[in-house]
Amino acid sequence: MNSKIAVPLFVFLLLFIQISSQTEQSKKILDKHSDTAEQIIKSSLSEMKGYEWLRDLCENIGPRLSGSEESMIAIHWAEEKFNQMGVDSVWLQPAMVPKWVRGNIEKATIVKSNKFTGRELNVASLGSSVGTPKGGITAEVIEIHSFKELEQKAEEVRGKIVFFNRPFNQTFVNTFRGYGDAVDQRGSGPSKAAKFGAIGAIVRSVTSKYDNVPHVGTLFYDNSVKKIPAAAIGLIDADFLSNALKEEPNLQVNLEMDCENFENVLSYNVIAQINGTEFPDEIIVVGGHWDSWDKGCGAHDDGAPCIQTMEVLDIFKRLDIKPKRTIRCVLFINEENGIGGALAYADSIKSKNEYHLAAIESDRGAYTPRGFSVTADSLTILGMQNWLPVLNKSLIEWIRPGGSGVDISRIEGAKALIGYVPDDQRYFDVHHSDNDVFDEVHPREMQLGTSAIAILTYLLSEEGL
Amino acid sequence: MNSKIAVPLFVFLLLFIQISSQTEQSKKILDKHSDTAEQIIKSSLSEMKGYEWLRDLCENIGPRLSGSEESMIAIHWAEEKFNQMGVDSVWLQPAMVPKWVRGNIEKATIVKSNKFTGRELNVASLGSSVGTPKGGITAEVIEIHSFKELEQKAEEVRGKIVFFNRPFNQTFVNTFRGYGDAVDQRGSGPSKAAKFGAIGAIVRSVTSKYDNVPHVGTLFYDNSVKKIPAAAIGLIDADFLSNALKEEPNLQVNLEMDCENFENVLSYNVIAQINGTEFPDEIIVVGGHWDSWDKGCGAHDDGAPCIQTMEVLDIFKRLDIKPKRTIRCVLFINEENGIGGALAYADSIKSKNEYHLAAIESDRGAYTPRGFSVTADSLTILGMQNWLPVLNKSLIEWIRPGGSGVDISRIEGAKALIGYVPDDQRYFDVHHSDNDVFDEVHPREMQLGTSAIAILTYLLSEEGL
Repeated sequence: MNSKIAVPLFVFLLLFIQISSQTEQSKKILDKHSDTAEQIIKSSLSEMKGYEWLRDLCENIGPRLSGSEESMIAIHWAEEKFNQMGVDSVWLQPAMVPKWVRGNIEKATIVKSNKFTGRELNVASLGSSVGTPKGGITAEVIEIHSFKELEQKAEEVRGKIVFFNRPFNQTFVNTFRGYGDAVDQRGSGPSKAAKFGAIGAIVRSVTSKYDNVPHVGTLFYDNSVKKIPAAAIGLIDADFLSNALKEEPNLQVNLEMDCENFENVLSYNVIAQINGTEFPDEIIVVGGHWDSWDKGCGAHDDGAPCIQTMEVLDIFKRLDIKPKRTIRCVLFINEENGIGGALAYADSIKSKNEYHLAAIESDRGAYTPRGFSVTADSLTILGMQNWLPVLNKSLIEWIRPGGSGVDISRIEGAKALIGYVPDDQRYFDVHHSDNDVFDEVHPREMQLGTSAIAILTYLLSEEGL
Repeated sequence: MNSKIAVPLFVFLLLFIQISSQTEQSKKILDKHSDTAEQIIKSSLSEMKGYEWLRDLCENIGPRLSGSEESMIAIHWAEEKFNQMGVDSVWLQPAMVPKWVRGNIEKATIVKSNKFTGRELNVASLGSSVGTPKGGITAEVIEIHSFKELEQKAEEVRGKIVFFNRPFNQTFVNTFRGYGDAVDQRGSGPSKAAKFGAIGAIVRSVTSKYDNVPHVGTLFYDNSVKKIPAAAIGLIDADFLSNALKEEPNLQVNLEMDCENFENVLSYNVIAQINGTEFPDEIIVVGGHWDSWDKGCGAHDDGAPCIQTMEVLDIFKRLDIKPKRTIRCVLFINEENGIGGALAYADSIKSKNEYHLAAIESDRGAYTPRGFSVTADSLTILGMQNWLPVLNKSLIEWIRPGGSGVDISRIEGAKALIGYVPDDQRYFDVHHSDNDVFDEVHPREMQLGTSAIAILTYLLSEEGL
């Protein structure tokens, strides 16, 4: 063979072999696991077991903020559910968590205005916020849209309530980008305002839905400046306040909140496990965070997604699938306002020297499946992509490199950290608010997600990485 | 070169060249059209124009059954919208359509029962059904789950009301399969029952949602047998009736309906067009069906999907995109109970000898985009798949061979007939029922669908097939 054509031909050949071996591998995986995948889907969609668990959780326990009484009831509820499944072991893993209590008063009222005096604004204290003195704080309001503008107006901020009013950008196709684009106002806005002498903060709710429901979430105080009280405001009232300020820039708002931070308290991760038959030392984690905000009932964030991962174990048990590797469901406590649960879990696996092959987190709502976002080396991801024809049965379209989830990201040494990615268009309509209730979860969408996570767990257990 | 290796190498080479040329082509298309696609998405998501049109349609016109006064108001409403866009031409295309009127009475009541006398069942007359005599028909009820069972029980059917009660199969991942699996009961059930002497039919609503709302749709009478009255029943009452029959097999039901069929009447397709700059004789149709059932407001079926295709023209106008090929929006009348509009359109293009390059139909709800289902030869589909990186910006994951849509399927000679396929998990929750209202349409999901259809229309116009 002429060496001039031999080299490019060799390269062609190699590339072609790679592509065709991937197709070959895909077919093999499909032939091998198709039946089990279909059984998983059928069982999930016909029994609707997780959806009924969610109904029970929402109707009888409700929201579950870390450190609250309800969170402890929910922890024991989950423990009981795992025990009923007959898995190999169930345990509670201690974790210290913050205790913040909303209290009974969260209100903002326009005062000292010609036209709007007495108008109440629909607000909710931001998580971790300090309260106000009794009777509240009263001050003029300055509307701000960016931290740059805040710095430019530094002189005008002193003694005022800063009103962060940058809207959620609806033009991003991925709503997580819209959220990421606006959430800094809530997270670090209050302390940035305090640095310039502000005495309080009101933050436009970070949401994709136009209504008047405040969406909460935690703020992060900078310990070098005074902690000022901060609240989220519903979008309709945010626009009302903005317009009112245009008419009367000197109107004042009275902001009163009796929320309070207490000492950290003891709580728990809930953990359940089915031991692997061939490689029991290779652990595959599935899980989400069991705490929620104290608005709505934490149905999409993160009740339903947690229950999806609980039902993975139940599906293995009820279909009598004996996994080659150990499947462990971890319901992490305290993702919303700290990561006490994630740290406790990470510490425990380090001290026990446990090896995690992979971990899957479900914390993006319980909508129709779209894909899995994977933190792993490229070859591992390429290998997993061979599983797509099987996963597609539950509507998974893609496996892509990307972030996984807050809680599992603390797990060291895993070959793959995986985030379950359902459709995200409606998630920030409900996120961290009274909109996040049971009726917002669609039974089929939730159970298809359960199927997708169960099939991936099963493939990881059977095929390894 | 040794011929023993030359032949397989040549095959490898050819295949490799095909794969790499597809990748190459994909990249070229992406580079060329990325900006326009992004502008389309941004404009669609920020202006929310179609969503606001839908609000107006639902709030001020409502449902639009073929032949009704509301359908004519809706036809002129659409004509007016097209005129406001400043497209090149707008016209109404005459089409004869059936006129069926629900009337004021549709009720079913249990009578001659020890325990359940007087219990009303939530029913709604099926489209095209004849009414009952005044005072209704009263008869025993026989529950049937399949046409096979109907034949087996032929002797027992005479003089009775047949209650078709086969449930929607929730284990199909694609809800259109669940619908297809059960809808024969509604379509041909009444006449099949009449063949054995039944005097009426009650059909379990073909829906994925467990509530008590009847879901209607048309029945098809077999002209060789007597036309018997038929109604859909809500799922809760279907289960109630089924249980009641187990307790008292001889209970009777009085079914009264005053719906009526009239002579066909004149109606119209609404058509609007932007002329192509380079190939004006190559027509690309986008559209849906402008009629709806007379329950709810036909928001998902087919108001929002029609409006998506109307907004495609508006997007071209407002972004000043001058298409190479002619873009025509067709709002077909009478898809729900006949195909008068589709036939009129097909006739017209035949008589004018118009060439259609492609047609896109939107008639599967206005949920988040998933893909396009294409009737075309394999090479055409392979070529269109090169456009996926551009289409994926609006969340289109796939282009697959498959059916297009009822109305465009009558267009002869087109290179590609294309169905827009959004997520289908919630569609049959609302389909043909009072659940199909404006609030069930999510603004972002609808506008992303608009973007997807607009981008595909743009690519068809720029690239051809």
